[in-house]
Amino acid sequence: MDYAARQRRLQGALSDHKLDLFLVTHLPNIRYLCGFTGSAAALLIGDRGTTLFTDGRYIAQARAEVQGARIVIARKALLAAVAEWLAAGRRTAARPILGIEPESISAGMRDRLASAVRGRVRLRFAAPLVEQARMVKDPTEVGHIRRAVEAGADLFRVALQRIRPGVREVEVAAAMEFEARQAGAEGMAFPTIVASGKRSAIVHGRASQAAIPHRGFVVCDFGVILAGYCSDRTRTVHVGRASRPERQMYEAVQEAQQAAIAAVRPGVTAAEVDAAARRVLRRRKLACYFTHSTGHGLGLEIHEAPRLAASQTQKLEPGMVITVEPGAYIPGKRGVRIEDVVVVTSSGCEVLTPGDKELIVI
Amino acid sequence: MDYAARQRRLQGALSDHKLDLFLVTHLPNIRYLCGFTGSAAALLIGDRGTTLFTDGRYIAQARAEVQGARIVIARKALLAAVAEWLAAGRRTAARPILGIEPESISAGMRDRLASAVRGRVRLRFAAPLVEQARMVKDPTEVGHIRRAVEAGADLFRVALQRIRPGVREVEVAAAMEFEARQAGAEGMAFPTIVASGKRSAIVHGRASQAAIPHRGFVVCDFGVILAGYCSDRTRTVHVGRASRPERQMYEAVQEAQQAAIAAVRPGVTAAEVDAAARRVLRRRKLACYFTHSTGHGLGLEIHEAPRLAASQTQKLEPGMVITVEPGAYIPGKRGVRIEDVVVVTSSGCEVLTPGDKELIVI
Repeated sequence: MDYAARQRRLQGALSDHKLDLFLVTHLPNIRYLCGFTGSAAALLIGDRGTTLFTDGRYIAQARAEVQGARIVIARKALLAAVAEWLAAGRRTAARPILGIEPESISAGMRDRLASAVRGRVRLRFAAPLVEQARMVKDPTEVGHIRRAVEAGADLFRVALQRIRPGVREVEVAAAMEFEARQAGAEGMAFPTIVASGKRSAIVHGRASQAAIPHRGFVVCDFGVILAGYCSDRTRTVHVGRASRPERQMYEAVQEAQQAAIAAVRPGVTAAEVDAAARRVLRRRKLACYFTHSTGHGLGLEIHEAPRLAASQTQKLEPGMVITVEPGAYIPGKRGVRIEDVVVVTSSGCEVLTPGDKELIVI
Repeated sequence: MDYAARQRRLQGALSDHKLDLFLVTHLPNIRYLCGFTGSAAALLIGDRGTTLFTDGRYIAQARAEVQGARIVIARKALLAAVAEWLAAGRRTAARPILGIEPESISAGMRDRLASAVRGRVRLRFAAPLVEQARMVKDPTEVGHIRRAVEAGADLFRVALQRIRPGVREVEVAAAMEFEARQAGAEGMAFPTIVASGKRSAIVHGRASQAAIPHRGFVVCDFGVILAGYCSDRTRTVHVGRASRPERQMYEAVQEAQQAAIAAVRPGVTAAEVDAAARRVLRRRKLACYFTHSTGHGLGLEIHEAPRLAASQTQKLEPGMVITVEPGAYIPGKRGVRIEDVVVVTSSGCEVLTPGDKELIVI
């Protein structure tokens, strides 16, 4: 990863936003900008270059990972070290303006920092500059996500071997997670969802102790982290013979997903992709059962910008990587969701997730 | 769990802290107070009782889980719904004071809330009232932690079967995590640490693709989540014959751990327990290699108050559950850590973690 280039681009954007300095406190943003993966850090970008602040637990790790930034090991609180550093610096601006990330810095931290630098540095909430940069992935990042998506695909094969009536959902999840580890995954991207029978109608139906019933849908939603990048994939299978309404519901979601994928291309808004899926489900009288957004960006985090929802005016650009995952959930009865990861290309999109999406009956 | 009693106790503490209302935004605190386990919520405690705010994804889950609180489903941002609710309420106080949690509410959220309720409600940073209550566990909670600790113990048996020269660290972790799932764990309490050979000197040495060498320590640090409660356990084993300095280092850490456990009883400060471990390692000339604190509370979170460190004046009380986990790490060479979970009793403490701690050579 060209961390120095990322830092330069951010530094270049500061003056447009009337900022002299920028304090990054959201850990995935810090990883994106300098490679550090520890759990305690702040990254200061400004006129004296880039400085990573971490604590004594991460001395060796910071030296091994951090690129393009000097490292300061904080003896006490991280932000106290940042404040000291700011106080000690000779600067070009008289009372420089420091941009902070409003959603990742806690109210307590902000106030402590503000009083520690009072009279010397002015704090301002900054726009989500790093999140905006992270939306468009470079080829190396797309490669990482592609490998994470491919590793995730093997997990579904394991799920298909395990899903049988009477098997507990957690047993299926356990086998999938074991396979993920064997394939070199650092971990799962989120708690594995295996939701069977009536539980398939629960959107976030984490694998439970419930036994898979003799008939009904099983929603499997899972992702791995590989080299820091996430994958995300949902397939819904049916145990036992599927009734006509069940098949129709599956086909409607499948058609909605295909329509949304067909809508993905540069210049289209996130809302338009969402609308494409919703249109199909409305025609199929299932729109009221589609209770979440159509998809989300993914990368270093499992949920990133852009969000594919009716309110989102963000235009798609080549290099954005998003999930496309419409669903329908009839409370207390059944649910279906189908999800792929796609990358926006210059002319449309490429579906990274392998495998077809016809209904599999077990 | 008696959620209503927990809410009553918190409500009772409000006037002592000159607060009329309290807004809980830290999710484990919300779970502690009303049972809700979703990933988006705010809990308002005050003169009109308790109200949980969540979003449309969690309608069914909130109805199933929440006790002692009414449920409000926010159409837009959670805190916008909280502000509306506050604006609509008739209150006893003219301009009530709303306590917020400074470390869990983001600076952006606080400012949006403050401007939405300006002139009607005054915001104040509150003391960590819920964290203080959570420090002392009731018998049901101790029971949950005990079961989580016992489930975790079986994982070490699996690790012992797997640890062999040439086996990759992640393979050991994968087998442990598979066992955890089979035992009903909701997940791991933190990324499993399997750090072998030179990597044993990395305090947070997550299981990597590295193969276990023919000689050297292997630090295994792992925990599961069972019924929401965490376990945490570290054992260090040696592959191949241990040299004399290696044995001495192991024995020193073992002795330090025993000394710290012997120091745990009501009325003793967290700093005194930390000092007991550090004293042994100083005598053994290893104090400079003990680079973290001696332990931490655990419960709904893997790291809770109290922290067993030199700066901590918190006195131990019956019902507190803490880890005792001194270690020594010689950079680039080797590391040892031994960790148990103990509960403070009326006269001393009970070690919940089963199994002896003599050095196991594989």
